[in-house]
Order: sequence, then C-alpha cells, then structure tokens
Amino acid sequence: MTHPRAILLVQCPDRPGIVAAISSFLFRHGANITDFDQHTAEEEGGVYFTRLEFQTDRLDLPPEDLERAFALDVARPFAMDWRLTLSSRRKRVAILVSKHDHAMLELLWTWKRGDLGGDVALVVSNHPDLRPAVEAFGVQFEHVPNTREIRAEAEARLGELVDGRADLVVLARYMQIVSPELVARWPKRMINIHHSFLPAFVGADPYRQAHERGVKIVGATAHYVTAELDAGPIIEQDVGRVTHRHSVDDLKRLGRDLERRVLARAVRWHCEDRIIVHGNKTVVFD
Amino acid sequence: MTHPRAILLVQCPDRPGIVAAISSFLFRHGANITDFDQHTAEEEGGVYFTRLEFQTDRLDLPPEDLERAFALDVARPFAMDWRLTLSSRRKRVAILVSKHDHAMLELLWTWKRGDLGGDVALVVSNHPDLRPAVEAFGVQFEHVPNTREIRAEAEARLGELVDGRADLVVLARYMQIVSPELVARWPKRMINIHHSFLPAFVGADPYRQAHERGVKIVGATAHYVTAELDAGPIIEQDVGRVTHRHSVDDLKRLGRDLERRVLARAVRWHCEDRIIVHGNKTVVFD
Amino acid sequence: MTHPRAILLVQCPDRPGIVAAISSFLFRHGANITDFDQHTAEEEGGVYFTRLEFQTDRLDLPPEDLERAFALDVARPFAMDWRLTLSSRRKRVAILVSKHDHAMLELLWTWKRGDLGGDVALVVSNHPDLRPAVEAFGVQFEHVPNTREIRAEAEARLGELVDGRADLVVLARYMQIVSPELVARWPKRMINIHHSFLPAFVGADPYRQAHERGVKIVGATAHYVTAELDAGPIIEQDVGRVTHRHSVDDLKRLGRDLERRVLARAVRWHCEDRIIVHGNKTVVFD
Amino acid sequence: MTHPRAILLVQCPDRPGIVAAISSFLFRHGANITDFDQHTAEEEGGVYFTRLEFQTDRLDLPPEDLERAFALDVARPFAMDWRLTLSSRRKRVAILVSKHDHAMLELLWTWKRGDLGGDVALVVSNHPDLRPAVEAFGVQFEHVPNTREIRAEAEARLGELVDGRADLVVLARYMQIVSPELVARWPKRMINIHHSFLPAFVGADPYRQAHERGVKIVGATAHYVTAELDAGPIIEQDVGRVTHRHSVDDLKRLGRDLERRVLARAVRWHCEDRIIVHGNKTVVFD
Repeated sequence: MTHPRAILLVQCPDRPGIVAAISSFLFRHGANITDFDQHTAEEEGGVYFTRLEFQTDRLDLPPEDLERAFALDVARPFAMDWRLTLSSRRKRVAILVSKHDHAMLELLWTWKRGDLGGDVALVVSNHPDLRPAVEAFGVQFEHVPNTREIRAEAEARLGELVDGRADLVVLARYMQIVSPELVARWPKRMINIHHSFLPAFVGADPYRQAHERGVKIVGATAHYVTAELDAGPIIEQDVGRVTHRHSVDDLKRLGRDLERRVLARAVRWHCEDRIIVHGNKTVVFD
Repeated sequence: MTHPRAILLVQCPDRPGIVAAISSFLFRHGANITDFDQHTAEEEGGVYFTRLEFQTDRLDLPPEDLERAFALDVARPFAMDWRLTLSSRRKRVAILVSKHDHAMLELLWTWKRGDLGGDVALVVSNHPDLRPAVEAFGVQFEHVPNTREIRAEAEARLGELVDGRADLVVLARYMQIVSPELVARWPKRMINIHHSFLPAFVGADPYRQAHERGVKIVGATAHYVTAELDAGPIIEQDVGRVTHRHSVDDLKRLGRDLERRVLARAVRWHCEDRIIVHGNKTVVFD
Repeated sequence: MTHPRAILLVQCPDRPGIVAAISSFLFRHGANITDFDQHTAEEEGGVYFTRLEFQTDRLDLPPEDLERAFALDVARPFAMDWRLTLSSRRKRVAILVSKHDHAMLELLWTWKRGDLGGDVALVVSNHPDLRPAVEAFGVQFEHVPNTREIRAEAEARLGELVDGRADLVVLARYMQIVSPELVARWPKRMINIHHSFLPAFVGADPYRQAHERGVKIVGATAHYVTAELDAGPIIEQDVGRVTHRHSVDDLKRLGRDLERRVLARAVRWHCEDRIIVHGNKTVVFD
Repeated sequence: MTHPRAILLVQCPDRPGIVAAISSFLFRHGANITDFDQHTAEEEGGVYFTRLEFQTDRLDLPPEDLERAFALDVARPFAMDWRLTLSSRRKRVAILVSKHDHAMLELLWTWKRGDLGGDVALVVSNHPDLRPAVEAFGVQFEHVPNTREIRAEAEARLGELVDGRADLVVLARYMQIVSPELVARWPKRMINIHHSFLPAFVGADPYRQAHERGVKIVGATAHYVTAELDAGPIIEQDVGRVTHRHSVDDLKRLGRDLERRVLARAVRWHCEDRIIVHGNKTVVFD
C-alpha cells in the first residue's frame, strides 16, 4: 500500500517473447512486479493484452527515463500501443448528472470512503437541484443548462469546465443528448450508465420496455460512450430477478441499485487503469 | 404429499369479493386450501390472477360436479377464465430435439428423479443420433426427418405423434423452423429454449452475437412459442457472468448449463400448472 | 398508491375455512383486498400465516371498530395471533451506529428517496463523528457514549431516546454489546446486520475468519436480535463471489455493499409489515 | 486447440525477477506462452503463485529435458515448488458414489460432452444400484461394499482399484466415512462435494440444519479432503436463494443442482491444472 507503484497497460500483435521482453526490462531496471495479468485474443492473427503493476521505489532511473527506455527497448520492436501511469497520479473525475441523484451519490460516497480509485473533481448538471447535496461533499458544482436549442453553447461550456480539471467524464444519468463532437472530445474517457441489460432495450425508458416485454431479469450496463447511441464498448453489467409482481416503478427502484453498483465498479476500474478498449470491446483486468 | 389435490387457475377482471367467493365455495364443499397465491395487474382496469391448491379427499361431491358447480356459482358471475386440474392427472411431455442433447437429457434426468412434475411421453428428433440415449430411459423415440422441402409432411407426422400422447411440446434445441400452422396447433402448450437473454440476440447464433457485442453477462430464455420468432411470452430466464477471456466456445459451454436449468424450471412450472399467460406475458406462481 | 390501505398479518393453527372466514369478513365490511399472500408450515400440526393488504376507503365502519369486529368474529374462533396496521401510520426507525457509516447512510438515502417504507426518526451513536452527516438529512443525532463500564447507564439513555420516538431499532454496525435487558425491551423490533453469511463466522471479525477459511463466497445477514449473539431469526441474506485475490480489506469493501443492501431490504420489509416471526424463523411476504 | 501444450504450476517465496526468469527461460527454448496468470499472497513474507500454458511444438528440446533444465536453471535458484504437465497427458478420474446419482451423472455427462478436462476411468460404489447407469457410458463399475465393520478391507480394495487407474478421486455423494489412512493415500487428489455452504452446517444432514436455522440462501462446497471432516481447502462454492416456502425436500432438490454444478467445475479445474493448494486454501486460476 505504501510503496509507490506504476501501472503498465500494453496492447500489441501477439508473438513469442513479449512477456520475457517486458519482465526482463523491468527486472533490469529494479522494478518489482506485484501484479501481472494478460490476455490473448484469437482474432486478427492474435492480439496480446497485458496489465502490470510494479513498485517504483528501487528503480535505477526516474520514471520519465524509464518510459523513454521502454519505448525504445520494448515498445517499438513489438509495435506496442501502451500507457504507463504512476499510482501517485490519481485520475480526476467529472460527473454529469440531471435530476436522478442515486448514481452520482454512489460515486461521491464511494470516493469519500476511499474506494473509488480516483477523485471527484466536479459535478455538472443541467438542473440546479443537486447543488446542496454535491457541495456537502466539498465538491464544486456547476449548473449548465442544456436543451436542444442551446446544445452547442452548453457543450462548449462543458468542455471548458472539464478540460484540465478531469481525466474522465461520467454520465451518471445525464438525460441530455451528447453530440458527436463532445463524444469525440473525450474518446475512451466518457462512461455512461444505461439502465438496461444492453443490447436489450436500447433507447428511452428501458424499464418500461422491459415491463412490456415481460422479462424475468432486468439489468444495467456501464459502457464507454461512442457516436452510436448505447452501442459503445461495454465495461460492466449486472442484473436482478423480477417477477410479474414488479410494476414499472418497482423495476426503477431495483434498477437504481443495479445502476449505481455497476457504474461505481466501472469508474473504479477505469481509475485503476484496469481497462483496455479493443475495437468495440473491453478487456477488464479486475 | 399423499393427499389427492387439485389446482385451480383463474384469470378475471378485478373487483371486490373474488377471494371471498372462491374460498367460501371451496370451504362449503369440503376442500381444504393448502396453497393460495394471487396477483393483480394494474393494466386495463385491473386483472385478477390466482392459483389455489386444495385437498380433494373430503369433497362433498365428485370433482366433475365440483367443476360444474364452480362454473355456475363462481366463474360465471365473475367472468372468469379458469382451469381446474386434478393432481392425479399428470401432464405428458413430448420433447423435440435435433443433435444437441444437453437440454433433452436434463429433462429426462429430472423426470427420472421425480422432479419434473410431469412425465416424458416421447422424444422426436430430425436426426436419428439420440435414439440410444433416449431409449435407455425407456422412452419412445421417433425419427422424423425435417427440412424446408418436406416441412408440411414432417409437421403432419409430428402432429400425429404428439396429439393424444402429450399435453405439452418442448423444443429442447430443435433446430428447425416451426410453421405458424404447427404453432397454432398447440397454443400456450409449446415451450422453446432460446440460448440468449431475450430480447437481446434474437435469431441465429446468439452466442456469437453476444461475443461480438462484448457483453459481460450471457443468458438463456424459456418462452412459449408464438408465430413471431423468439417473441413469445417469457417464462423464465437466467444468466451467467463472462469476461473477455471467454471464447464463443466457452460461451456455448456456459450457455448449455443455463439452457438446461432454465428449460427444466419452465417445464416443471408448466406441468405443475403454475403459469398463466396474459397477453404476451406470464404470471408464474412459483 | 393514493387509496388508504391497511395490512393484516395473521398466524394461527391451520384448519379449513380460514381464508373463507377472513375474506368474507373483509368483503362484508367493504374492504377491497389488493394483495393476499399466505403460507402453511407443516410443523406442529400445521401453522397458517397470511398477509393481506386491503383498501379502507369504503369500509362500512371505522378502522378501530373493524379491528374489534375482526377480533370477535374471526380471530377468536381461529385462535389467531394477529396485527392490523393502517398504511397511514408509517413506522418510525431509530438507527444505532458506531463509526462505520455505510449501512446508516444507505438507510438515510433510501428513506430520502421514499423507498424505505418508514421514516428515520433519530440516529444514536457512541461516537460523535457522524453528527454532521446525519444532521445534513435533517435527522436528530444523539451522542450516547457506551462502554462496558457505563453500559447500564448508556442503555437507560438509549431506552429513553427511543421509546415513544421509534417503532423499530436498527443496529447499523453498532459495535457495542447489547444487554439481554435491552434486547428484551424491543422484542422482534430490533434488527442487526451481521457481516457474514450466518451461521458461518459468528462473532468478531467475520471477514478475517472468512479470509482464513478460504471461502469463495462471502455474505451478510440481517436478523432480529435475540439474547443469543448472532442467533436470532434471519430476515435476509445476500452473497458475493470472492477469489484468492481478495485480501481482508477487499472482503470488507465488498462486504460493505452486501451489508447495506441486505439491511435496507430487511428494514423496508419490517416497515411494510411483511415479516412474521415464528419460533426462530421468519416468514417474509415480499 | 490443435497445438500440443504444457501447463506449468509454480509456488515459491516472492522476490523480484521470477517472471523474468520463467518467461526468458521458456522463450529461449522456443515455448510460446499462451496463458499466464499469477498471484502474490501477502502472508509469510510473500508467496508467489503462477500458472502458465505454453505451446510445445517448437521446443528446442524434448519435454523431459525441458523439465530437467527448468529444475536447474529456474526452479532451484528460486526455491520453487512446481509441476509441469503435458496437455497430451489427460487426468483420469475415479468416482466414488453411494445411491444419489445426480453428482456422478453430471460428471459422466460433462465428460461425454468433452467438457470435463479429464477422463472418467471408473466408478466405485458401496451399492450395486448404479451399475447400469454407469455402464451405459461405457465406464467400468465396481461394487465395493463398505460399512464400519469392513472399512479396512473395503478401503484396501478401493486403493487397489484406483491406484494406477486414476489420478484423481472424486467423492460424488459417497456416504461413507473415509479413514485418515485413505485420505493420506491421495493428498490433494481427493475432492468431496459437501451439500452446504461451508463452514456453515458441517456434518450430517446439512439441508435439515439449514431449514431449522431458517437461512435465506443455501449452498454447496467442493473441497479437497483432509483428515478433519468438511474442513479441507475449499475449491468452489455456489448458492441459491430460498424462502420460508422451501421444505427440506425443496432444499434437497435445489441443492442437487448446486452440488452437481459446483462439483463439475471443481473437477474440471483440477483436471486442467488450475488449482494450487497453499496451506488450507486454494489458488484457482480459472
């Protein structure tokens, strides 16, 4: 817990010798690997994914130089897409929310308790209602009205507020359309919670859709936002049983529990650099 | 266990006095209610559903007369859609299967163990492969080839084999199209197992679809067959967690476990008269 | 939602005619039954349990008179142990807590959202730390120090604070021994959350015990408090999967989620009069 | 799928350089690592566990020589407890069973379907009843009567039958006491299925115990057998929800499903060399 650590995420074409190359490099420079997970996808001739955690207090060179050396010695020969993060550099989270407070509150509480893996930097809402709840946590709250008519202006303001202040944007039941431009601004850095078990019940009012279809299980899905609605890479899902006795309101109540649990897990995994996006899927090293 | 019992299923417009009318009638005639479950759906001005089990050994009149009296005294005034079944009259099940044997075997084992609630009367397959496995259970096996070209003929043969021999038809991974005519022959009496969490991944090869979408949970769905593919009333669903490590084959293996569990539960509930179909939904008194 | 309702809970020796007697009585007096659940336990010659909800706005006599009539006409002849509660009379909840705030916060949030079924009347803690968090919800907070040496005095103060103010006492991770006298003061009205899957890991530090035993699933249990530690009637349990990778701290984090979910459900069920205690077990009409 | 593979399991004191040493050794000898999982337990100064799968078709020396070289170059300097298994050498399983057939049948079916990871070599029972069911799978069945009086003789016969024929012994509801001597004969190679969520309900008739305690969830546990009853290292557990409506018989029926599922998973993991036993716990690389 007390040792400074770093996390290395790698994605590259699969071929023999990758593990040996990475682990020998780190060993040579005094890094002690404490966690090592890997995965090989069979598609496209084989894609190799790995996540390593290592202690950095006995490195024989500063982290920046280690990065440079890694790029030259290992990453280039293996054509790696990679990212090195120091654990001292915690991710900062911006939450976008409308009126439903359950998902946002779960993130704030989880953060307060030290379980989020990152820090909540600010909350932005298109309604002023949640200001007191947010400020009670000592977190900055910004009211940015947003409707179809003033979308461009609202999103410009959102961009200004978030950039430089946050590394991750979380839509915690943000009930506004997000333009392709905004999506493109934070690729693989914007997480949404959808209140159904995707790909079932895409679009509006999924609990009503679920009730009408008479399903026996409902769910919630956290995913990265892409240009296509509710179709981005899925990070996490969870479900709960229902019966004919559940009204739409019952589904909503049950769903609130699923949504906040699923979203909190997804945000923690992102903050702890446990997720690699590959095509429209995620590799989650949990 | 040893007392002869009857099961009463009722569906009618909701209004005061239904419970009193049913229970007073039964009490008056010497029936001891051992199980009583009910549900009221809010839609359409209220629909009342109930399932009762009662002992019949102290009835003051034969079951057929009880039925006639119930029709006059209770069912007619309340405009009930109802069904009375003696527990001595166990449901007979016909299984349709192709080559995948897991769902069929689960039904046969569950039956052998006395847990199915009904009896397997025969198995029909469009392939001859499973004959020895079925006959080892002492169950009749019929090979009825079925392809697009000979559909009508094959289904005529199916109808002949099933009618009079079985009360319920179960498609236990029967990989043939079923014509609207055959569906219409056994309304609310034909159950299919679909190997996904409906309404996600309707149609062919749902595990491949699930793998491509990158879902974190897969499922299976048992439903009554209707004219529209994979869209009939859902009886039961179950799910299992998956990760990026699961190949399509892994999903299939995991899915086989889900499919057989879900299908066995659905068939048992049907055999025990626990299901009322209402519109495109089910009320399951489990 | 808008109709005034009442809930009737009944427990009595099983014999024919109970349902008819209750439902006819209610129908006669203009009560419309909206929910009806029952259960018969086989033990001891049969014990009958039921829970009914009915609308009271068309009663032909005031609720108090209905109670008196029910006692004479129905309850006495069937030797019923029963309880009638008007939905207008919401249960008031007192929460006892030490320093861990997650279970208490979950109850407060659930209440705020309108999902608790009752009202949080006050929070009492043996530490002053949680005062601001509680008062932010507009709820009274009382600091009552409690140690082995001053137990009697502390519990006298607890009794004073709770009686008249609350109908239910919830130990939301209250880390103090509760004396048999205090237990006897609120029989079937004091709920505890134990952080294990009882009866496994009774006593102190259950997550450490679970880690040492190497279990693959951990749980949480909400139960009514009785004189014997962790042995009272179980109301609700839930579990989560763990692996060899989970440290004791990981179990605690996962456990916090289980605890708050399980406790909130148990408290809601109690507030909605869904629980009948029978011997050392509960019948939960959820 | 088609490439010949080997699995390496390692357990050793944690220290820097292990991953580099192993992966460099394998790379040097032409082994392509296809799966790599590891875990570090914090206890006792740190214990390192790993499981690797690698392709063996391009090795620069025969597997036996690779083993010898690994022992000298890597295992000795790091004080490793290790095991190398060729995937061509499938594990052979002996099943011990009494009269309940569900767990045994599940193993046989799973094997038939190709999902067990090993091969069922023989079934031994203290009752003759299951002979036809077993022989229908083409598997050798041996009837070895076993009672307290003839325990020594029976176990001698069991030893004879198993040794040389099987690598793993599975107690699939074998209702006889197993002597410490027999346990000592197959350390970490005898798996039992206990029909409760251990450590709850150790000993006889756990479903009855669970019913009496009024739990809301029941479970099953697969564990390695050790001298102390029901106390060996847990491999896998699973659970199902129950309510006050479940009789002891209902728990048994539900439990049968849990037992067979849990046992089949545990046996598969053992056959695929996914389990390392460490003290009284398991590390499962699933």
